[in-house]
Amino acid sequence: MAKPEKKNRPKASAPKGFRDYFGNEVAERGEMLSAIAEVYDRYGFEILESSAIETVEALGKFLPDLERPNEGVFAWHEDEENWLALRYDLTAPLARVYAQYRNNLPAPYRRYAMGPVWRNEKPGPGRYRQFYQCDADTVGSSSSAADAEICAMLSDILEAVGIARGDYVIRINSRKVLNGALESLGLSGDLKARDEILRTIDKFDKIGESGVEELLGSGRLDASGAFIEGVGLEPKQIGGMLALLASRGQSNKETLDNLKSAVGATEAGANGLRELDQISNLLDAQGCGLDRIIIDPGVVRGLGYYTGPVFEAELTFEILDEKGQRRQFGSVAGGGRYDDLVKRFTGQTVPATGISIGVDRLLAALREKGGLGGSKKGPVVVTVMDRDRMADYFKMAGELRSAGVRAEVYLGNPRNFGNQLKYADRRGSPLAVIEGTDEHARGVVQIKDLVYGAEIAKNASHEEWKKRPSQFEVGRNELAEKVKACLNSWSS
Amino acid sequence: MAKPEKKNRPKASAPKGFRDYFGNEVAERGEMLSAIAEVYDRYGFEILESSAIETVEALGKFLPDLERPNEGVFAWHEDEENWLALRYDLTAPLARVYAQYRNNLPAPYRRYAMGPVWRNEKPGPGRYRQFYQCDADTVGSSSSAADAEICAMLSDILEAVGIARGDYVIRINSRKVLNGALESLGLSGDLKARDEILRTIDKFDKIGESGVEELLGSGRLDASGAFIEGVGLEPKQIGGMLALLASRGQSNKETLDNLKSAVGATEAGANGLRELDQISNLLDAQGCGLDRIIIDPGVVRGLGYYTGPVFEAELTFEILDEKGQRRQFGSVAGGGRYDDLVKRFTGQTVPATGISIGVDRLLAALREKGGLGGSKKGPVVVTVMDRDRMADYFKMAGELRSAGVRAEVYLGNPRNFGNQLKYADRRGSPLAVIEGTDEHARGVVQIKDLVYGAEIAKNASHEEWKKRPSQFEVGRNELAEKVKACLNSWSS
Repeated sequence: MAKPEKKNRPKASAPKGFRDYFGNEVAERGEMLSAIAEVYDRYGFEILESSAIETVEALGKFLPDLERPNEGVFAWHEDEENWLALRYDLTAPLARVYAQYRNNLPAPYRRYAMGPVWRNEKPGPGRYRQFYQCDADTVGSSSSAADAEICAMLSDILEAVGIARGDYVIRINSRKVLNGALESLGLSGDLKARDEILRTIDKFDKIGESGVEELLGSGRLDASGAFIEGVGLEPKQIGGMLALLASRGQSNKETLDNLKSAVGATEAGANGLRELDQISNLLDAQGCGLDRIIIDPGVVRGLGYYTGPVFEAELTFEILDEKGQRRQFGSVAGGGRYDDLVKRFTGQTVPATGISIGVDRLLAALREKGGLGGSKKGPVVVTVMDRDRMADYFKMAGELRSAGVRAEVYLGNPRNFGNQLKYADRRGSPLAVIEGTDEHARGVVQIKDLVYGAEIAKNASHEEWKKRPSQFEVGRNELAEKVKACLNSWSS
Repeated sequence: MAKPEKKNRPKASAPKGFRDYFGNEVAERGEMLSAIAEVYDRYGFEILESSAIETVEALGKFLPDLERPNEGVFAWHEDEENWLALRYDLTAPLARVYAQYRNNLPAPYRRYAMGPVWRNEKPGPGRYRQFYQCDADTVGSSSSAADAEICAMLSDILEAVGIARGDYVIRINSRKVLNGALESLGLSGDLKARDEILRTIDKFDKIGESGVEELLGSGRLDASGAFIEGVGLEPKQIGGMLALLASRGQSNKETLDNLKSAVGATEAGANGLRELDQISNLLDAQGCGLDRIIIDPGVVRGLGYYTGPVFEAELTFEILDEKGQRRQFGSVAGGGRYDDLVKRFTGQTVPATGISIGVDRLLAALREKGGLGGSKKGPVVVTVMDRDRMADYFKMAGELRSAGVRAEVYLGNPRNFGNQLKYADRRGSPLAVIEGTDEHARGVVQIKDLVYGAEIAKNASHEEWKKRPSQFEVGRNELAEKVKACLNSWSS
């Protein structure tokens, strides 16, 4: 027989590239974000929650042409003239908010923000079209002190969420220093070449000094045997760039001294070095020494956007990658100084500096390190032995909750006791409370530990369970007290 | 001179009907939601964060025709065939998630969710197109115990966020009882008339018994003098409905007894009464007496959707409305049993019951009652008297933070000391730390209380400030200790 109505049933799935988060996944992220917010807060930053939807006009970027404004963003017609779009990051909305409210905001304006952003991109394994960002920015201060503060805060954050000192490093550089070095080598005129050079430097960690040398010159065979064309610099220019990368010394002072020759007599270079020196001094004053934050001439942080200091937080402990090879965990946050974002709206340059923390990356790192609080325990399940006495079971659950214990009464069909235990197992319940007619008559209840019994539970009957030594009987009137003692003894 | 570039500047404003939330607005909502989540959690509910975007196919509803699927929702083309949309509530996504993962979810599935939803509606004063919802539902249990649990939990939540017992009441009714009463009066055949009758009953609180009587009959002149056509029931039918509304007794038992005659011999009515009786008994067992939850035959909760018990939480304390008149604060949450939401996807009826808390309404109520933790104090501002000693000021801020004090160094241009104090004022800073050259030489700092000096601050010079008695000097090495003592003495 045909089932015509079935054809009309909608498909029950999240859209392509989107996912749902259950229980502990949400709780763990929430705990991490709370710990981060606490540090932002302690540094005097204020939370801002901007609208998830912006006008396409205000978002700007990602708009190759007006016919198709939804390239990279989720956008739709608001009316004949206007488009709306979901925010793709937290920085573009900050620029809009600052421009809109600048007369009423404190100056400088320190704000943090955390929440989902959306990208209309091709989804891939582990790449979703909705994900969390967590940013902090100081808008309206051109002082290097603002950059230093951001870096010290980022360092405190990593430790606050559970990354031990020594397992991370924050690397600082300056786009002005990079630009100064390029200028002193006669390489600042050709923007395209400049970008290629910076992109090449950015690969230093992966391909090493010889790899960078080849790529800055005539080219290089990559691991697969393919030839990668080089930038075609002259040997002297290549030497200059390699000298820049080799500038890192035993201290920030030494690094800055070494960099002086790389940037030559350029104004950009001198400014960049002065700012890095100020930042380094301010960090020292706050106890952020080389074990936490270092100046590293190899940090580039993408191409556009940044105008001064740039920052990158890397986790230095090793993990096994997909191929089973050991590698450093890598970058979990980055940022820098950008001065032109508000100008789009107001025509005036507003200095700003900030960081963005990769929420999913940092969560993955904490899972690796076992640094998450651990899965929240499931609720104590009060089983239903006698469905006419639901009120009694509710009373027990109520008593447990009043004592601060997560607890619930089994609400499915109670006929099959095995199903109740399977349910408790699936919920990760630490223990079950059992009160049959017999127990009720005697004024007692059975407390059954489930933590070690999950496997056996699957096919056990009520009677088999009662035989296990981990099950014990307590007086009905001491239920909450004994359950609490039991849970406390396990968690300590 | 023409300024052509100005024309191209985007407008810095959130889209029509959207707004941004700053600082304490976000923090207060976050605190309230945390308190709610804690209760959900204690009852064994699991958090779910579904994707903000759903396929229009999965969302279903709000779709009058396929040509224009964005009526009421924000929707856009994903590709030629498919539309995506922002969720408009948290229940439709729950139905989709349950249908998608039902084989892997515990049964019953208790879940809670909190987050923004979006409505493509005409914005009005105080009505936004993005707002928060906070729901809890039990899917997969037809037991009245699930309904009772939801009501007890809602009651605990109201007290947990700061609504005192006596300032709220949760009213319970049953659609089955309403349907039974209508059926026994011969009014169940005409669905349109039935809906009109329920809508009229729903107005009981506003227009009273005589108003309902008129509207169920021939009609009524409203406050403005306009004539509102009535439903046109016969006197006997009107009497029956009024008797239903008058059924509320001194106890739930008495109310249920009174309702027996209203529902007559109908099966729906008998089932409804039996369920309400079970719920009432289970609530009693948990200490939810008449001071918290009552059976009220006048509760309707909208028209479609619900199939059994319905709940409504009302705040009973009085506020002044826009016209300066005293009225009860009113509804902040509601819900009930619905059995057909998952059926759209699977073809099978899945029993479910739940509540939705009006986050903004409840927040407004807490503001009325002064029940919010109070504004978070602004940071202690370390002022900059000597810009060459930024490192010293950073060190002070670092010491304060290590002692758990929210603190920051002033990062604007320090030249004008008045601007620094204005900034501190705007941030709501409790105190400022001042260390000029003189203090530095003597190894002391000035601590200036700002809480009572905000007005004077606006035009004060550093010297004037130093004269105020609320400013005092402490040793540089006891800075953190004294600041902390000062803040603690104020907050206690």
